[in-house]
Amino acid sequence: MTLIERNLKITLAYDGSAFFGFQLQPGVSTVQGVMESAAELVLGENVRVVGSGRTDTGVHALGQVALLKTRCPIPVEKCKFAMNGVLPYAVRIRAIEEVGDDFHPRFSAKAKHYRYLIRLVKERSPFLERFFCQIEEFLDIENMREAADRFRGEHDFSAFAKSPDIIENPVRTILESKIDRENDLLVFDVIGTGFMRNMVRNLAKALILIGQGKMRSQEIVELYRNRDRRRLGAPAPAGGLYLMRVMY
Amino acid sequence: MTLIERNLKITLAYDGSAFFGFQLQPGVSTVQGVMESAAELVLGENVRVVGSGRTDTGVHALGQVALLKTRCPIPVEKCKFAMNGVLPYAVRIRAIEEVGDDFHPRFSAKAKHYRYLIRLVKERSPFLERFFCQIEEFLDIENMREAADRFRGEHDFSAFAKSPDIIENPVRTILESKIDRENDLLVFDVIGTGFMRNMVRNLAKALILIGQGKMRSQEIVELYRNRDRRRLGAPAPAGGLYLMRVMY
Repeated sequence: MTLIERNLKITLAYDGSAFFGFQLQPGVSTVQGVMESAAELVLGENVRVVGSGRTDTGVHALGQVALLKTRCPIPVEKCKFAMNGVLPYAVRIRAIEEVGDDFHPRFSAKAKHYRYLIRLVKERSPFLERFFCQIEEFLDIENMREAADRFRGEHDFSAFAKSPDIIENPVRTILESKIDRENDLLVFDVIGTGFMRNMVRNLAKALILIGQGKMRSQEIVELYRNRDRRRLGAPAPAGGLYLMRVMY
Repeated sequence: MTLIERNLKITLAYDGSAFFGFQLQPGVSTVQGVMESAAELVLGENVRVVGSGRTDTGVHALGQVALLKTRCPIPVEKCKFAMNGVLPYAVRIRAIEEVGDDFHPRFSAKAKHYRYLIRLVKERSPFLERFFCQIEEFLDIENMREAADRFRGEHDFSAFAKSPDIIENPVRTILESKIDRENDLLVFDVIGTGFMRNMVRNLAKALILIGQGKMRSQEIVELYRNRDRRRLGAPAPAGGLYLMRVMY
């Protein structure tokens, strides 16, 4: 009997501070690496786990999506339970479902939802650095909200990309961009059809600079035109960023 | 002019998962190590930072106390601000006060307050492993409360110590031991005049075993007598433990 190859769509959450990013790298612990090791233990065959995209070191996920092809006939619920049993606790599989051959975690994605968390603090907590961007200075939230509005639509985001991306098409479409405040927590939600490397952390950095009064909201429009990558300096800290959901 | 040596009592909080414990070790990042480096940068002299005791890798502190002797005349508030400016974010100085020559962070301590945090979860969160002991099974809280009561008083805690401690006097006095529940969070607070290495994590482990029905509450009294170090197995995870306060 030849077993049919099945396509398992895996939704996973992880603490990005425990890994050297998503993508497989020799000699260091990555999300893809521990997922492949866990899958091999459970399924008894060599597998490749393909993600919807990479996340960098320190960037978290609540709803990363990965595809795993296997000939093992294990039921999906059992597979989830068994893989969570051997995975490090910093990665948890939330759901597994069987999908068709036409599904590709990256190319089938219609949009991605990222969230950036800023905590307004008097004194930074040593326990929350991995999970929030903690800001001790005053931030003008209204100016930040106005700036977040300006991200919506189709723009040339060269000034918000990591330099190697200069070669590809730097135009991206942002469907949603907004800031909610709940007490001391600022939540920046952005949904787009595609993002370049470091792009969300650079959007967040622009918002922070604007909140601090170090940049005018209007300058965002200028950045679309002048593509000046130096204006924003270093991107906002990785620990504040969460990949919330990949939409298909 | 000869500057007088001052004794600075430092209260500090840290994320224990970011360090290889409190105590200085060559080649790895420790709380004592980063504190001494920060003090040297700010005070311009070689200093030794002496803690109230070590905490192991992964164990957190909200109120660790350390002593620093310096001839630098910097005001304490300025010293706190400057040291927090150069320390890694995973360590934060909460307060600095000048104390007399007779103060010793370890020998002057009258008691210590530790807290152990257990989260009752359906599914473990990948983000909280460093900060809680996450338990997916049912725990009988009433049995755990009864067991926590039995820790109070003066007992031979050999069965709750790491083996090298077998040589010293294993009798310790527990002043307070209780469990509070707030929704899904179990808070085990224990105050004692002294603790042996791994002792609080082993007390927590006994409570968890009792909550899981794997041990009877009455067995604690037997452990005081039979000193059986193997009964509890590995101590409860370091990430759930917090040094809350050192009392002088």
